Amino acid sequence: MSRGLFITLEGGDGSGKTTQAELLRDWLDGLGREVVRTREPGGTEVGVEVREIVLHHRGDISPRAEALLYAADRAHHVATLVRPALERGAVVLQDRYIDSSVAYQGAGRVLDSREVRALSEWATEDLAPDLTVLLDLDPETARGRLDASRTRYDRLEAEASEFHRRVREAYLAIAAAEPERVVVVDAAQPAEQIAAELRARIEPLL
Amino acid sequence: MSRGLFITLEGGDGSGKTTQAELLRDWLDGLGREVVRTREPGGTEVGVEVREIVLHHRGDISPRAEALLYAADRAHHVATLVRPALERGAVVLQDRYIDSSVAYQGAGRVLDSREVRALSEWATEDLAPDLTVLLDLDPETARGRLDASRTRYDRLEAEASEFHRRVREAYLAIAAAEPERVVVVDAAQPAEQIAAELRARIEPLL
Repeated sequence: MSRGLFITLEGGDGSGKTTQAELLRDWLDGLGREVVRTREPGGTEVGVEVREIVLHHRGDISPRAEALLYAADRAHHVATLVRPALERGAVVLQDRYIDSSVAYQGAGRVLDSREVRALSEWATEDLAPDLTVLLDLDPETARGRLDASRTRYDRLEAEASEFHRRVREAYLAIAAAEPERVVVVDAAQPAEQIAAELRARIEPLL
Repeated sequence: MSRGLFITLEGGDGSGKTTQAELLRDWLDGLGREVVRTREPGGTEVGVEVREIVLHHRGDISPRAEALLYAADRAHHVATLVRPALERGAVVLQDRYIDSSVAYQGAGRVLDSREVRALSEWATEDLAPDLTVLLDLDPETARGRLDASRTRYDRLEAEASEFHRRVREAYLAIAAAEPERVVVVDAAQPAEQIAAELRARIEPLL
């Protein structure tokens, strides 16, 4: 089977995932590769409906329900969009994947991160990224970037800064445990400098 | 801790779950017990939104995503409604619970029923019913009842009859494996006769 390349972008809101995904897409387009830009939650029609619940429901959602909703979005997204794209040889550039659930629901909330990961592994039938880019940024800096651009925060963005510190630590722990898969990038650098670093890292995988 | 009684009603659509739940509620009301009538999916505000996706989304939902959506509904329902009711001593009369997921998603679809059950056990932190009433009915008879009363079928009701035969077999297998918890009732009997049988079974548990 012809296989594409599955690249995920991780990091807090305001860390520059969207900018880097766009720069990578332009570069890969130029190389003549089919590129699929997508995200979780909300990369499919079902996912848009699930995303509306997890990010914009008025009132609390129990922690286990929240973890299961993200896993449901992920299951449908992988089965109907990501796997078919990889099977036809595309490069999938995806905002957020399993590491987000582990960092946000596992470390940020009260759940066991191994259990949260196991849910997503079941949901995706163990589809792992070929490469994960962790855009690491101090939460205060990230918040400053968001304040400059947003007029409204979703449920997760509005969490307290202590929460975002725990999320960052969880991300760095994942990267330390899986250095082959996860490349940690200092997201405080200029965007073009980060993009050059990522192109150098991705080129040998193409 | 003062504990209530958790009774679930299972069986195919058209097997009479709603009628029996109403008869039980009237009887328990008369005994002065607090009764909470509820259902899955859709027993909470979050659940109503999830139910809308699983039952009425236009287009297919991948089997794992469907199982995860039911588990998400269940997690929120148990955490915010069922457990608090049981803790204050109420009798919870619930249309559908974990057995429905095992029967419909496990047996009816392509998933491993042990995995589907494990999802729900995680979702509910292992909350098991004190008693489960399985209203057993031949699918053809059930369909005849539904045809008389419905003008529109949801996604699951519209599945082929072979699917409903597998669901029935899965339900009966659960009952055979857990005879202490699950009472199988011949749902072709008159409603009042079934209700009398259930009252006799429930009375010692009060």
